[in-house]
Amino acid sequence: MNIEFDLIARHFSRPAPPGYLGVGDDCALFAVATGHHLATSTDLLVEGRHFFSNVDPAALGHKSLAVNLSDLAAMGAQPLACLLSLSLPDVNHDWLSAFADGFYALADEACCPLIGGDTTRSTSGIVISVTVMGQVRPEQALRRSAACVGDDIWVTGTLGAADIALRLLQKKLPADPTLLAATRQALEWPVPPWRFGQGLAGIAHAALDVSDGLAQDLGHILEASRCGAELDYAAFPVASALQGLDGQLVQSAVLSGGDVYQLCFTAAVSDKQRIQALADAASLQVTRIGQITAEPGLRIRAGAGGDLISLSRTGFDHFS
Amino acid sequence: MNIEFDLIARHFSRPAPPGYLGVGDDCALFAVATGHHLATSTDLLVEGRHFFSNVDPAALGHKSLAVNLSDLAAMGAQPLACLLSLSLPDVNHDWLSAFADGFYALADEACCPLIGGDTTRSTSGIVISVTVMGQVRPEQALRRSAACVGDDIWVTGTLGAADIALRLLQKKLPADPTLLAATRQALEWPVPPWRFGQGLAGIAHAALDVSDGLAQDLGHILEASRCGAELDYAAFPVASALQGLDGQLVQSAVLSGGDVYQLCFTAAVSDKQRIQALADAASLQVTRIGQITAEPGLRIRAGAGGDLISLSRTGFDHFS
Repeated sequence: MNIEFDLIARHFSRPAPPGYLGVGDDCALFAVATGHHLATSTDLLVEGRHFFSNVDPAALGHKSLAVNLSDLAAMGAQPLACLLSLSLPDVNHDWLSAFADGFYALADEACCPLIGGDTTRSTSGIVISVTVMGQVRPEQALRRSAACVGDDIWVTGTLGAADIALRLLQKKLPADPTLLAATRQALEWPVPPWRFGQGLAGIAHAALDVSDGLAQDLGHILEASRCGAELDYAAFPVASALQGLDGQLVQSAVLSGGDVYQLCFTAAVSDKQRIQALADAASLQVTRIGQITAEPGLRIRAGAGGDLISLSRTGFDHFS
Repeated sequence: MNIEFDLIARHFSRPAPPGYLGVGDDCALFAVATGHHLATSTDLLVEGRHFFSNVDPAALGHKSLAVNLSDLAAMGAQPLACLLSLSLPDVNHDWLSAFADGFYALADEACCPLIGGDTTRSTSGIVISVTVMGQVRPEQALRRSAACVGDDIWVTGTLGAADIALRLLQKKLPADPTLLAATRQALEWPVPPWRFGQGLAGIAHAALDVSDGLAQDLGHILEASRCGAELDYAAFPVASALQGLDGQLVQSAVLSGGDVYQLCFTAAVSDKQRIQALADAASLQVTRIGQITAEPGLRIRAGAGGDLISLSRTGFDHFS
């Protein structure tokens, strides 16, 4: 038995649920419900780029899956299964065990069993590739191109904390252990609203997950839907940990900070109460932050009664 | 527009076929036929481990998908779609263009459209992650555990050439440009029998693709099916380019050489003619190389009328 099989057998062979053929054959197999399409997405996480070398491996296991579940939520899709590939410079069983625990805990919670993958030794840093698969009725899928003029623009959760934590860890802000303690969870243990996302299917119009910064991500909806937006900054759900920080810093974290893994979506004004009820049922904060306009471009009103300022798209760029 | 989006837009955004939602949303979407299960597999290719840094990028694009299509073929599944993630140390548009051409050419041929993926800058070498998705009727899927005592054991194509090419390129064999020219295609441009694999669904019993060496891979079938096998070495389809080489070298290349991406499968003796007809229709060489036995273990008869020799599993290990 070679090390690849031993590594998979030791850490990544927890049994798949009934009806699934999981790890151990050439392919994994599972059913997709009648009337649904398969929804799939994949994300790479690279050491030194998407995570620090000394990150808690359990948090990394969690986040590797979370960033992918976030894409299913943004499509309104129900998670069905995931694949995990790891390229590792060496085999550290303690690290792998903690990584697997973090990964499986979220997979169990989201009913998204790990059914296959690949492992290989890398020549340098860790590379993690996760693919998620889910199902959604195609006519209910939340496409970026589906925003309508007059739609409310919503975001789930709060904004800004992950970006502040990242800046602290990168030493781009002066050391502040209290602030780091209050923001680090948002960066390292994001919890995308995958159940709420499924509930939005058939109700919301356009949606995406905030991964590169709200302004940049919302820009993708506006471009695909050929419309514009007006945002009301005073309504933004700024993370409470950011209270007391410099206003410009907060604004930058909230508008351009990445790694949020919450949803930004648009819906008819008439569906406001259904959306609030859906969020209440999921114990999730949702906030209406603006409106879709026929006039192209992204504009923001900084304070109540203030002027609209045109906002250029800036965001967290994974390839710059 | 950031570089990630530009890179995807420039090289990896060829339109998906009607019925697919491809690159550009949070998830890709496509249908799975009624009565079928989704079959999925993923493989990582790491520079310096699975390919040489100076490999022809078009060949690498082709092979990245081929090794994954091989897994679908080994399950009897029809390709539906694929995802491609690239971690790159830098952006070389000529390299990417050739890589994309090789990838898309095979994707088109196998009707396996590229519908999503991810790109990121790596801190060191190239890492390629491909996920394929296909469909198969679950009761017809070719599982490793389905071999029956008395089954014929078959292989598609020929054996040994890829391993000899690899040894020449690794300078583990004395330089021999003629031999390299005759074997290199097998290593760099493998053509898994994906159409033939679909035809085997419902006919063959167990199957897998030969990626780590025939003896080791067949061992997985024997273990999963709790049986043994007797092989007839004289019947083996040795690649013609290996004629005249040392007998022990050939034997090692044929039994333990990896990177073959042909199928090894078992089927009832009574289905011999159906299998031959299926292979003829696909212009594919298939060879009966032995039989499944109740007695466990893998035994091989070196020459006609010779004794059976017990064969320990040795193979190409991606993690040693």
